[in-house]
Amino acid sequence: MTDKRIPDSTVRRLSLYLRFLGEFEASGVETVSSEALAERGGTTAAQVRKDLSHFGSFGKRGLGYSVGALARELRHILGLGRHWNVALIGAGRIGMALFEYGPFRRRGFHISTVFDNDPEKVGQARGDVTIHGMEELAERLKEGHIDLVILAVPATVAQDVLDDVVRAGVTAVLNYAPTQLRAPEHVALRSVSMLLELEALSYALSRQRSA
Amino acid sequence: MTDKRIPDSTVRRLSLYLRFLGEFEASGVETVSSEALAERGGTTAAQVRKDLSHFGSFGKRGLGYSVGALARELRHILGLGRHWNVALIGAGRIGMALFEYGPFRRRGFHISTVFDNDPEKVGQARGDVTIHGMEELAERLKEGHIDLVILAVPATVAQDVLDDVVRAGVTAVLNYAPTQLRAPEHVALRSVSMLLELEALSYALSRQRSA
Repeated sequence: MTDKRIPDSTVRRLSLYLRFLGEFEASGVETVSSEALAERGGTTAAQVRKDLSHFGSFGKRGLGYSVGALARELRHILGLGRHWNVALIGAGRIGMALFEYGPFRRRGFHISTVFDNDPEKVGQARGDVTIHGMEELAERLKEGHIDLVILAVPATVAQDVLDDVVRAGVTAVLNYAPTQLRAPEHVALRSVSMLLELEALSYALSRQRSA
Repeated sequence: MTDKRIPDSTVRRLSLYLRFLGEFEASGVETVSSEALAERGGTTAAQVRKDLSHFGSFGKRGLGYSVGALARELRHILGLGRHWNVALIGAGRIGMALFEYGPFRRRGFHISTVFDNDPEKVGQARGDVTIHGMEELAERLKEGHIDLVILAVPATVAQDVLDDVVRAGVTAVLNYAPTQLRAPEHVALRSVSMLLELEALSYALSRQRSA
């Protein structure tokens, strides 16, 4: 890896390329050109080549990329062959849907600890995991070798919980609370903003209906 | 509304401003400057003013914006005071978590129809909604006055289902399948890409661990 500062948009496209390579692989295609990858992703061949060039040299001039080999490289770059130890905070509907979401586990993300502040839930088992109270958060995060925290708590408490998580030394957080959170620069923070997407659609619908 | 072509990024920021206004309102703040909104959102005061200027003139020079009035305007612009009739396709874990997700309903999105292809689920009731088989999709979408479809189906079938949805005349789709979908230009299509965010975090973690 030659460059430490890869743009976010590049990482996002690598994920998409990996998805498309999976589709090509499933339909028996063995080599693919940057043009074909670009077309599937709505970008340009030059962009595909530039994105990949951050990480070294893949493919042969004029021959395109080996679908299988490039997929393996992208999985490696994206850290998808590894095992990540995850704590889930918030055992509500969204949290538990994530807990049982197969694709998380298949990408190496294993939820080993669950926290909730509901006394009725604390102590209950989910699969082979027990739900812990929030008062145990700091200690368990520190001692549990947690790589990533998934925040599935109400928006009103999300920043406070995030601050606790950061203080406990966690450096990667996936946020599902519908709010804008702030974290120090050394923390990788991503938000899945269902409500933002929904509001964008609501906006589009209003426009359509008034057109 | 003076301009029909508002950038996507502006719409996204309007959602965030609305969120921040809610926070200001909850803490008893009655007027807010573009500087304060910008600071909360990690942008510039000029950007805030430019975003709002697409939709008319708000606030008074030197006095800032009335928190309540601007929030009402943004809700109106984003179509959040209206009632949208929603069909959910896919009654799996993610789909049903969305079905019971309060904030959807509070924004005017009412799931009135649910589809699934699992014979064991078809005919079952969820709240006051019955799950229908996929063979009824086209007819029910056409006759049900559906404004928006939520796609919560496996990635492998998502494009086919989306094509059926578009053929049935639906013009707004919120996609939860972890894949890149294509729709005609007149269709507003948004994706909530949990796996893309997760892969970006996996990438960040790999970098952190190898640093």
